[in-house]
Amino acid sequence: MILGIIGSGQLGYMMINTMRKYPMEFYVIDENKGPAGYIADKFFYLNDYKTFVNSCDYVTFEFEQVDETVLKYAGEKNKLRPDIKSVNLKKDRLLEKDFLRNNNLPVAEYEIADNYKKAFDIAQSFGKGVIKSRHGGYDGKNQYFIDKNTKYIGHDNIPYVIEKFIDYDYEASIIAVRNENKDFEFFDPSFNYNKNGILIYNIAPVKNNNISSKMINIAKTLMNKLNYIGVMGIEFYAVNDNVIINEYSPRVHNTGHHTLSGSSISQFEEHVRSVMNLKIVKPVLFKPSGILNIIGTDINGKINKIIDNKTDIYWYHKSEVRRKRKMGHINIYDDCYDNIQKKINELINIVYENGLDNYI
Amino acid sequence: MILGIIGSGQLGYMMINTMRKYPMEFYVIDENKGPAGYIADKFFYLNDYKTFVNSCDYVTFEFEQVDETVLKYAGEKNKLRPDIKSVNLKKDRLLEKDFLRNNNLPVAEYEIADNYKKAFDIAQSFGKGVIKSRHGGYDGKNQYFIDKNTKYIGHDNIPYVIEKFIDYDYEASIIAVRNENKDFEFFDPSFNYNKNGILIYNIAPVKNNNISSKMINIAKTLMNKLNYIGVMGIEFYAVNDNVIINEYSPRVHNTGHHTLSGSSISQFEEHVRSVMNLKIVKPVLFKPSGILNIIGTDINGKINKIIDNKTDIYWYHKSEVRRKRKMGHINIYDDCYDNIQKKINELINIVYENGLDNYI
Repeated sequence: MILGIIGSGQLGYMMINTMRKYPMEFYVIDENKGPAGYIADKFFYLNDYKTFVNSCDYVTFEFEQVDETVLKYAGEKNKLRPDIKSVNLKKDRLLEKDFLRNNNLPVAEYEIADNYKKAFDIAQSFGKGVIKSRHGGYDGKNQYFIDKNTKYIGHDNIPYVIEKFIDYDYEASIIAVRNENKDFEFFDPSFNYNKNGILIYNIAPVKNNNISSKMINIAKTLMNKLNYIGVMGIEFYAVNDNVIINEYSPRVHNTGHHTLSGSSISQFEEHVRSVMNLKIVKPVLFKPSGILNIIGTDINGKINKIIDNKTDIYWYHKSEVRRKRKMGHINIYDDCYDNIQKKINELINIVYENGLDNYI
Repeated sequence: MILGIIGSGQLGYMMINTMRKYPMEFYVIDENKGPAGYIADKFFYLNDYKTFVNSCDYVTFEFEQVDETVLKYAGEKNKLRPDIKSVNLKKDRLLEKDFLRNNNLPVAEYEIADNYKKAFDIAQSFGKGVIKSRHGGYDGKNQYFIDKNTKYIGHDNIPYVIEKFIDYDYEASIIAVRNENKDFEFFDPSFNYNKNGILIYNIAPVKNNNISSKMINIAKTLMNKLNYIGVMGIEFYAVNDNVIINEYSPRVHNTGHHTLSGSSISQFEEHVRSVMNLKIVKPVLFKPSGILNIIGTDINGKINKIIDNKTDIYWYHKSEVRRKRKMGHINIYDDCYDNIQKKINELINIVYENGLDNYI
């Protein structure tokens, strides 16, 4: 059994690392060799995409912004999972929002604009608004928060989607999995803390059960509508007892990394199992768990300060440290949510000794 | 940080696989490239042992029957962990037994013989005895059970150790870890089922608490006496409420593989942490857990029959299936010991469809 992974980043890296225990091989394709490429059984450059696809039983992707030619060819060969529809919707925020709204899934009010000035005016007309590039963009890139008092400063004249700002209580997300037999399973939703559009830490399970149930139902509906195969991450705004979808990611997701520790199965294993037609299972969270991302810094000399009997380190082995770059993460599990929060606060001071803002 | 591993088998393979998540590299040295060699950051052949040792921060071994030149050189450079004493005692069963007895640790009555005939006679004089080759030998190789009724059949005329046969209730083992600071931690001891001298399955924790306490105390004493650094596996015979040491292994051990699932930390992580001067911790068994070894067979077409929400597969990616060869193992965890036993019985029928005896 050979699984092809398009994309050579940390998500592919953890997918391979987690599933090396199975009698399987992993081939990776990308423009450049990254973490997943280093540990793949075979690495292919993009121009070799036909050999890559033809030698794999199934092909998945670790990130949705990957080369379209490979995706298309794998799709034509009936090997691509999840299928290309789930990616195409992600290439254009308008299509994604329209799809969600047309399926009666809760999204914030939104409009589009073909240049920044128009986007700015719409955002101000909302009172408070968020401008996001219509195509591409993740981890807060090309995102602008605008309110009545924001002074106009020009930005790239590209197409934008403008969302009415949701005055949410907090952000939350769910990791769910679905297979060819339409079986559906999910991990307990997590509370997420983002800053500058980047996930800093998260903790699962989220405390509010109403919020959880709504997220689970939405995940099930969305994945059924897409006839989805694989793991999906869906981010939400939680407002009182309700949730509004921020966006979905057709792949394993940063807010699912906590499933690597203290859980009976990880999101990476569920994804590979589902894509490869192996049984998916109901995950059991042995303990509440969370992660702290390590961004823009190494942890040289700090490992012994970080690890104890309730923490673990996942390092992505990237070639160099860069500001805003996710270098690894720390898993934390404990008997209760509040202990995890406390530990994360301590770890932030260890990892980001010059203050978080200097790294992201 | 670079850890050198002498030996390229499945134990090194799991060590690397488990610890890839750390900001570390793994170099492997062996006569031939095996599973661990395939996934190592660098592989060295034996004649390159000086470069190997000099480029590593620490050197450990995945198996005690490895090249002596490398062990010695790593020892001279103060990089070998555990140190060479723990290996030397294992190269000669007499030294091992003498060491244990001299330290008041419980072993069966034993004698030595320099040829098979003498060994046979001593075994018969014990009433019931076990003949084991004095040097080398594992997984039941060169072991003979003799009683009053056994007819003499000649075997290799090599030195032997003869043990008085212990009429034990069952076999059990403990996996423990110790570091440079003399910190000591242990995993819950397991019940082991062996056949033809090969471990077939095990389940932890063992049901008898008196047996457990005795094993823990013996592990602590033995590791202190050896000033041991790393993980050690110690096998015992359980008789009523007492234990007698069968043997110890100065390394990660087949009866510790259950710590890969349902446990807060695995034996492989504790070993690498201890050897690399990283914190070792008290392991928490989230659930009772066990393993079934996959010996002498592949599992092609059987994965979906094996995996469910309480089982997992660890495959060693060896080049070919051979009778008696350990090809992988299955982890099982559940809420109680008896459920695990039941599941193991089911799995034996799936994996060994022609009857266990035909594979070992």
